[in-house]
Amino acid sequence: MPTSKRLNVAVVGATGMVGNEMLRILAERKFPVEKVRAFASERSIGMKVAFNGDTIVLERLDEASVKGSDVVMFAAGADISLMYGPIAAEAGALVIDKSSAWRMKENVPLVVPEVNPEDIKDNEGIIASPNCTTIPLTMVLEPIRKKVGVERVIVSTYQAASGAGRVLANELADQTKAIAENRRPEVQATTHQLAYNVIPGGWQAQSYGYNEEELKLVNESRKILHDPELKIVATCVRVPVQIGHSESVIIETTEEIEPDDVRTLLGQAPGIVIEDDPMARIYPTPLHVAGHDDVYVGRIRKDLSSKNGIALWIVSDNLRKGAALNAVQIAEQAIELGALGAVKA
Amino acid sequence: MPTSKRLNVAVVGATGMVGNEMLRILAERKFPVEKVRAFASERSIGMKVAFNGDTIVLERLDEASVKGSDVVMFAAGADISLMYGPIAAEAGALVIDKSSAWRMKENVPLVVPEVNPEDIKDNEGIIASPNCTTIPLTMVLEPIRKKVGVERVIVSTYQAASGAGRVLANELADQTKAIAENRRPEVQATTHQLAYNVIPGGWQAQSYGYNEEELKLVNESRKILHDPELKIVATCVRVPVQIGHSESVIIETTEEIEPDDVRTLLGQAPGIVIEDDPMARIYPTPLHVAGHDDVYVGRIRKDLSSKNGIALWIVSDNLRKGAALNAVQIAEQAIELGALGAVKA
Repeated sequence: MPTSKRLNVAVVGATGMVGNEMLRILAERKFPVEKVRAFASERSIGMKVAFNGDTIVLERLDEASVKGSDVVMFAAGADISLMYGPIAAEAGALVIDKSSAWRMKENVPLVVPEVNPEDIKDNEGIIASPNCTTIPLTMVLEPIRKKVGVERVIVSTYQAASGAGRVLANELADQTKAIAENRRPEVQATTHQLAYNVIPGGWQAQSYGYNEEELKLVNESRKILHDPELKIVATCVRVPVQIGHSESVIIETTEEIEPDDVRTLLGQAPGIVIEDDPMARIYPTPLHVAGHDDVYVGRIRKDLSSKNGIALWIVSDNLRKGAALNAVQIAEQAIELGALGAVKA
Repeated sequence: MPTSKRLNVAVVGATGMVGNEMLRILAERKFPVEKVRAFASERSIGMKVAFNGDTIVLERLDEASVKGSDVVMFAAGADISLMYGPIAAEAGALVIDKSSAWRMKENVPLVVPEVNPEDIKDNEGIIASPNCTTIPLTMVLEPIRKKVGVERVIVSTYQAASGAGRVLANELADQTKAIAENRRPEVQATTHQLAYNVIPGGWQAQSYGYNEEELKLVNESRKILHDPELKIVATCVRVPVQIGHSESVIIETTEEIEPDDVRTLLGQAPGIVIEDDPMARIYPTPLHVAGHDDVYVGRIRKDLSSKNGIALWIVSDNLRKGAALNAVQIAEQAIELGALGAVKA
């Protein structure tokens, strides 16, 4: 973007796993930064984080310091986004929020750049980035929806520890070490030990027996796909993986589609890589997908239990495409669409 | 069973994880044994295994030694069952086979004692015990089927390493140790590292993009439930857990049923324990279910995406109810039904 002005970017929650990844991705993708500011919680203020071979001193977030940037990316808790997002937006910044705070608000676009980039234009200063399991799912659903229509979606997830932040990721590592040393693993972050276990919950319980995470997948997918009636059901499960969320998905389509056509369709879709040769034991696994930007899809086959069903398996890096990368891509897309006012020189 | 004669029991594959568990369960449940013989592969012959506070010398399996028992329980490979099962049966034994060799043969009952005990009567000397994920699933489906009918079942599994035997269980432990010690985990048993990973395959690839394990769940469930048209689709996934298979299940019923009624129905069903209070973070996990005989069910809720759908989560010990325990229970049930000829004094 040679004609663009360079931007002042702020990252809130810069010491967290997602915030840290945001800084790395901004540098990797040569996002046109003039200056980057990094905000963190009280105990980290004055310490430094790395950015593009340099260091940035962590600052205190307050009503004054949140102002003055062109883009403010929030990767802290929902309460922080609720409190400081509007202040930053009112001061002229484009706020891109990774928390759940603003996702379902009517005047806040919820954006996956490969799926609904145009929604960015409707922003009133705040754009929300969806939950880590929603992003890859909608990227797979959208091309299928366009081609043959989607009637119903059934999802079971296999979610990594890092989705719950550094505390659970560290706890999994500690528990793993304890097991290897024949010590009793300590359980603090969750009620159940995660190492050598799978946990069908841990998120805040909500209505109808569903938890917060499952309802996010339902409601956010409907909003992103502009299909408020989409039938979708989810079971969210935590697995002892450090990075990389997997999803076992059945998609019931309006018109029939063959697995080969799904393979071609998704293979041509932006940001999706097909890895699908079970005979050769080739399918996506979180361990080898971690660190990559794309969403990986495999095990594409007919659902033999329904008329127009397709079964498939999705894996993506929950810290990158599931979080930090998507937020940075929203900012890039906003520049592209001229929605980031300051950018036009 | 005070009037019963005591039985000569043989366990084939006694050093394997399932065979080992069979010996333990026979003792635990005070199965009426006269004598127990244990068979193992060449390299273990002459070594000893524990049984009920005593030891048994491991013997070589051949056409002579397989004869002369009242019950022969096979927990070795399918090839061993195919070769020696008929010889044992012809010599008058009741063969109970844990391998996949005989499960789908027409004249071989495939039995879960809580579901289809009467099928035992149709045996011609061989009774098959189903696959580890099939047993708990059919135990949950049968009471629901009887009450409101079952139209369609959608399953995603979370299967423990021990389901693939001691080799993978040991490899998971070795990989876990390597991770804890910052060494590169070695991968031998499967193409993909299992520790810190989930693998959507590893079973032999079969038709329509499905693998052997997924088709077992489909075909065996249909046979056990006597419903050859049952619509069922499965995605089988290996997770880094040592013992305990979990299943995320959607059941579409013919008539509507409320989650509370499912809870009551399954709570009264034999061999099922309900653990279902997500608000208090109570749900079955493989780590705490391992070592228990019952099938644990939780996360029971309406599937909000279908008219008559119920979503739930099943966990059971794949070595016990998923394998060894079910086989021993088949033998017990055969005694009960008078199908074990020798038992009547």
